[in-house]
Amino acid sequence: MNQRVDPLSRLVFELSKLPGVGEKTATRFAYYILNQDAEYATALSRAIEEAKTKIHFCNLCFNLTEETLCQYCSDPRRDSKLICVVERPSDIGSLERSGHFKGRYHVLHGVLSPMDGIGPDAIRAKPLLERLRPTDVESVDEVIFALNPTVESEATVLYLSRLIRPSGIRVTQVAYGLPMGGAIEFSDRHTLARALDHRVEVSSR
Amino acid sequence: MNQRVDPLSRLVFELSKLPGVGEKTATRFAYYILNQDAEYATALSRAIEEAKTKIHFCNLCFNLTEETLCQYCSDPRRDSKLICVVERPSDIGSLERSGHFKGRYHVLHGVLSPMDGIGPDAIRAKPLLERLRPTDVESVDEVIFALNPTVESEATVLYLSRLIRPSGIRVTQVAYGLPMGGAIEFSDRHTLARALDHRVEVSSR
Repeated sequence: MNQRVDPLSRLVFELSKLPGVGEKTATRFAYYILNQDAEYATALSRAIEEAKTKIHFCNLCFNLTEETLCQYCSDPRRDSKLICVVERPSDIGSLERSGHFKGRYHVLHGVLSPMDGIGPDAIRAKPLLERLRPTDVESVDEVIFALNPTVESEATVLYLSRLIRPSGIRVTQVAYGLPMGGAIEFSDRHTLARALDHRVEVSSR
Repeated sequence: MNQRVDPLSRLVFELSKLPGVGEKTATRFAYYILNQDAEYATALSRAIEEAKTKIHFCNLCFNLTEETLCQYCSDPRRDSKLICVVERPSDIGSLERSGHFKGRYHVLHGVLSPMDGIGPDAIRAKPLLERLRPTDVESVDEVIFALNPTVESEATVLYLSRLIRPSGIRVTQVAYGLPMGGAIEFSDRHTLARALDHRVEVSSR
């Protein structure tokens, strides 16, 4: 595959591997890059190399970071008694934008999917369980699962919660239901079923 | 702008300059790159650098090439008496895919747009006129304009055709009308107006 003769085809080929990018879009990107000053090509290729070289996993939560510990694990103001478990590092950014979570994170880098051969050892499940063991200094009060609503992640939550609960730690998961601004008319039946099952008491305040 | 502290933000920043790519898509690209083997980051960044370093303009037609002359200008089987004028190098690929043109090309790298300060000197108009001067060896019979249907390109065709015609060279442009597979019902009024104005006799064969 490295034998593609001309530089343009090779660039299009590499760009078309990006998610959601077909040959047509990759070609548009390539022509755009060629149409800019040489500085842009240099800046872009350097940013790619540097990001890949400098960024690695946080030793504790497996978020992406340049340091030994990520910005959340090293922040003393974050509540270490509260751990939010996510699938991908990018999920952390979304949760942070909500401004509603002040604890620490744990990135699984996947969910269980026996059909695809992804068992507990293929995701960062063991390091999570190790983090939850109480030490002299601190102990965890609650683990909140914030996984994407899929069958696989439900199985993952079930599997991990069974391993965590005996330690007395509270295990919760984010609510699934109608999205804010969503319409009943246009919601799929699974979301509606969830929203009905998880209905809450209307407070009389 | 080069002062963006962390490599991830810098990568997202550079990727978000690509056409049609916002911060969200750039972030998705960045996480994808970080999620792949280091080989991909290296291959992609090298492809960008190499393409930008090795590819330049064809000395004759201003298409992109690694050589002095592009693949069409250097191909003796292509008819040098027929020159198709396009806006961008990427347009050549589209025309080649139609398989209907066996002449040479000329890339203007833009169209006249006095409102944006783009005059004849800002596009490759002069080299086109120079190419059309007959020499002892060869002369051009026809110039076909294949520009995108915009007001600016119509003005460009008009302007250039006035300069070319006195030399006796035939000046044509591609037909604009209903696209193949398009429906009258969903065509915009400008396309329909063009299609009506440029209607052709139905042959009785």
